[in-house]
Amino acid sequence: MFTGVGTAIITPFDKETNVDYNSLKTFVKYQLDNGVDSLIVLGTTGEAPAIEEEEREKIVNTVVEIVNKKVPVIVGTGTNNVNHVLKNNKLAESAGADGLLIVTPYYNKSTQKGLVEYFKYISERTTLPIIMYNVPSRTGMNINPETAVSIHENCKNVIGVKEASSNISQIVELFSIKPDSLKVFSGNDDQVLPIMSLGGDGLISVTSNVALKSFVELTHSILNNDLEKARKLNNQFMKLNKLLFKEVNPIPVKYAVSLLGLCENVVRLPLVKASQETEKLLKEEMERLNLL
Amino acid sequence: MFTGVGTAIITPFDKETNVDYNSLKTFVKYQLDNGVDSLIVLGTTGEAPAIEEEEREKIVNTVVEIVNKKVPVIVGTGTNNVNHVLKNNKLAESAGADGLLIVTPYYNKSTQKGLVEYFKYISERTTLPIIMYNVPSRTGMNINPETAVSIHENCKNVIGVKEASSNISQIVELFSIKPDSLKVFSGNDDQVLPIMSLGGDGLISVTSNVALKSFVELTHSILNNDLEKARKLNNQFMKLNKLLFKEVNPIPVKYAVSLLGLCENVVRLPLVKASQETEKLLKEEMERLNLL
Amino acid sequence: MFTGVGTAIITPFDKETNVDYNSLKTFVKYQLDNGVDSLIVLGTTGEAPAIEEEEREKIVNTVVEIVNKKVPVIVGTGTNNVNHVLKNNKLAESAGADGLLIVTPYYNKSTQKGLVEYFKYISERTTLPIIMYNVPSRTGMNINPETAVSIHENCKNVIGVKEASSNISQIVELFSIKPDSLKVFSGNDDQVLPIMSLGGDGLISVTSNVALKSFVELTHSILNNDLEKARKLNNQFMKLNKLLFKEVNPIPVKYAVSLLGLCENVVRLPLVKASQETEKLLKEEMERLNLL
Amino acid sequence: MFTGVGTAIITPFDKETNVDYNSLKTFVKYQLDNGVDSLIVLGTTGEAPAIEEEEREKIVNTVVEIVNKKVPVIVGTGTNNVNHVLKNNKLAESAGADGLLIVTPYYNKSTQKGLVEYFKYISERTTLPIIMYNVPSRTGMNINPETAVSIHENCKNVIGVKEASSNISQIVELFSIKPDSLKVFSGNDDQVLPIMSLGGDGLISVTSNVALKSFVELTHSILNNDLEKARKLNNQFMKLNKLLFKEVNPIPVKYAVSLLGLCENVVRLPLVKASQETEKLLKEEMERLNLL
Repeated sequence: MFTGVGTAIITPFDKETNVDYNSLKTFVKYQLDNGVDSLIVLGTTGEAPAIEEEEREKIVNTVVEIVNKKVPVIVGTGTNNVNHVLKNNKLAESAGADGLLIVTPYYNKSTQKGLVEYFKYISERTTLPIIMYNVPSRTGMNINPETAVSIHENCKNVIGVKEASSNISQIVELFSIKPDSLKVFSGNDDQVLPIMSLGGDGLISVTSNVALKSFVELTHSILNNDLEKARKLNNQFMKLNKLLFKEVNPIPVKYAVSLLGLCENVVRLPLVKASQETEKLLKEEMERLNLL
Repeated sequence: MFTGVGTAIITPFDKETNVDYNSLKTFVKYQLDNGVDSLIVLGTTGEAPAIEEEEREKIVNTVVEIVNKKVPVIVGTGTNNVNHVLKNNKLAESAGADGLLIVTPYYNKSTQKGLVEYFKYISERTTLPIIMYNVPSRTGMNINPETAVSIHENCKNVIGVKEASSNISQIVELFSIKPDSLKVFSGNDDQVLPIMSLGGDGLISVTSNVALKSFVELTHSILNNDLEKARKLNNQFMKLNKLLFKEVNPIPVKYAVSLLGLCENVVRLPLVKASQETEKLLKEEMERLNLL
Repeated sequence: MFTGVGTAIITPFDKETNVDYNSLKTFVKYQLDNGVDSLIVLGTTGEAPAIEEEEREKIVNTVVEIVNKKVPVIVGTGTNNVNHVLKNNKLAESAGADGLLIVTPYYNKSTQKGLVEYFKYISERTTLPIIMYNVPSRTGMNINPETAVSIHENCKNVIGVKEASSNISQIVELFSIKPDSLKVFSGNDDQVLPIMSLGGDGLISVTSNVALKSFVELTHSILNNDLEKARKLNNQFMKLNKLLFKEVNPIPVKYAVSLLGLCENVVRLPLVKASQETEKLLKEEMERLNLL
Repeated sequence: MFTGVGTAIITPFDKETNVDYNSLKTFVKYQLDNGVDSLIVLGTTGEAPAIEEEEREKIVNTVVEIVNKKVPVIVGTGTNNVNHVLKNNKLAESAGADGLLIVTPYYNKSTQKGLVEYFKYISERTTLPIIMYNVPSRTGMNINPETAVSIHENCKNVIGVKEASSNISQIVELFSIKPDSLKVFSGNDDQVLPIMSLGGDGLISVTSNVALKSFVELTHSILNNDLEKARKLNNQFMKLNKLLFKEVNPIPVKYAVSLLGLCENVVRLPLVKASQETEKLLKEEMERLNLL
């Protein structure tokens, strides 16, 4: 699908919390201009659950149009209702997107056996390639390594997994049993170096919303076996990564993008703005990194 | 709202996975005939995320009609999209329901400060009393004790919390800081005795789908300070409680209700039927308890 | 062994960190005068791992002598070396102690099967009754409910378990499968009401070092089925319980006892004194509770 | 201290559970002959807590003598009693050991501030270099990244940390804030690739008791920036790593070494032999890897 950095882009809102399509266009151009390898639209960072159906269509269309096939556009279409996922997938197909990011069912959850059935049902109903998304801290459930492999074997268009389990032993095990054809992407900015060292293809990133060039450099260094350079960049951005998750993502990153002048500092419920303390620390760190 | 047992009822499906309204009617009557204190419709046990909007309306109307004010009908209306919650709430109001069970945002999550804003926004837009639902293992987030109290103080119709955090120290702390007007319900069948001993009003139960009489007796024993009787019943049903959660709820309880002849053993995706092993153990335990 | 409150007493040190036997005598008398039901000597609260062998002997002898059979004296003799446990047990026997509190192996840990062998080996070599101690947050391992029952069945003098797993579902399950002859004691002050409501015999307490009378009243209220009174006391002392564990126990309780004038505020390495913030909060709360 | 693989060697016992010094000598020679970079004596894998003082002296002397300065000999001297640590350290110095591996206090635990005091007290009383050992799953406590750095800054002979927290985000953070002079060693075989990719110097290994050559190759590949080769070896040995921790370490590895004919399959209490199932799986995997 891609190697390097895919930015899980924020969805800009105006002060009345309407989707700000102009800012969206500008932000996508900004990402393209700075060398992004892929764009992930309407992920958690894009506040997907707070986006209504009609907005979803317009957002995806807008991004696909601006990107104009320069890089793959991957749409987050997972929900916890299989019919809604199918509907989201159709919309992504119509818009001309290049791939789908589909999280496991959350809240209602499923069993490992149920996961295979779930992804089979979905993958048989779309022509687009799918990246599974494993994020137990949000979903309450895990994709076990054998299950990831089984889904890949049963669903020819499930071609990757975004791993955000933070369980490094599990991730190591996944690499040891998976075929080459199943790609692994780090779903956590701070874990990109360990996961790509294990053989991961790239990072689906929050931090690259505001520090894209360095994360392109970081991920490509690892792809080029240049560990020394990768370590240096990785160490340099660790504090920013940490601050961007000091409150529930995308609360801090929305503020960070607003500091760049690329969106308003506006989130939708159930999210609320970051505390002044978080904002202060974030601004200081971005200044230290010469991002402002 | 109620004291004793509120059953979080399953939603019966026919073999083609359509909602089976006749079975639903029969099942609600069965619950009323066996002394249930309240009915919770379209909770997780009712597979709410897999129910479409038009079905939701018909299900709630059906239950409210059959119950006919004999016991309170509480509708699970929580989602992770605030507008959908408002829509679900309107529908519950129109149908004549008596209360709302609203889970915290899941998957997108929120901060503690965000939770207060979220429940304020929702509670100001409904006339019905609300029970918050805290279930971190499904939602990825927790309602801290001080937050629960703050929500209650800021939202006059948030009158209770369904506690399913399994964090007993937190629950004890909640009792020590909350006003009497904030009711606590155990959200875990196996924790009803400890939580009601601390002063909880009742249990929102999965097991009472199939073992209602004993759970009425159990909860009312605690309300009557008869710990000896409560312990005996509690110990007796512990294995059944455990088996009903051997796979993701409501997978096992759907099978258990089907054994009573009150629904088909049919769940919707992302869930799939229980393993044969789980079904075997469950059937044996129900036989041992003379439930079959 | 006992019902009600057993205080896990601190070991007083003088300013040079020598054991202060005079303060120890005074403190034991203070506990007896205030109605303690049992004394646990050289538990974690007594900083057992930091006590040398010759001190151990003198401490146990001192306590047994002062107590003079008024209440049971239970000696913490568990380590992670079985020979040292045997030696500690002999010493407790010689001193005339009434029982042993033996924690599972920690750090080196064991399997469930290993636990049975371990307690068999130990229990066959002492005449004293044994309470097992389950505290996974310190030991890195758990006593599963079936294992606790199996140990009890295989070792006739293992008569109880101090449960500090904080896993309330596990504790409920233990009550449902254990024989009456296996006693359960809460190992956490804040969990005494839930655990005794389930049928526990008492509490092995840290807080009762400084708030004994209220904890005697609290535990005896539950034994007398007076839940209302128990809840009131429980709620009242929750904040103190919490503050006493704000830093690693027994750091805060040592300070709290020193405020009563009953010991110096001195701990041995690896422990160090509480922060000023913790001490300030603790003092304020003790004043609020009229303990000072 | 060393780069590459340090084997945390088992302590061989005869059938009567006496230390088998002849097997120990043979085993150390076997490790030297197969290219080990360092030997760690009397770690957890060496069942240190079950070794008596007089045995400790003889074991360390035996290993130091056989090794004869060919590689560094590091002695595990941590306990949860500071005086015993000092005594163990003296013994290691007298024997001519090259370094100390000192775990944080376990069971009694400490605070972060206490950790600094603890390591200061110890490091000021020895001339040998010290590697701190962080293993929360055994000790119940963590060394926070800032604390590790603070200890290093306060104690000039604390030169490294064996990281076995399994918390990859924490480990990444540690690399981002530590000076070059503080070395990091993976304390988990399955995490060697991610941790050394981050810049770790080596691995303190259990698996290398039985698969040394491959682990030398694996670690040196990473040191030489040859990620491709490292990944291949890492994937190949993942299942063996996992099986060696199927029961509490060193239960399975003792069996594995016995299959090589280098020791009896004998452990001391609190450990007991592996189950037949574990032994069967382990033997099969070792055969698959041509280790037998």
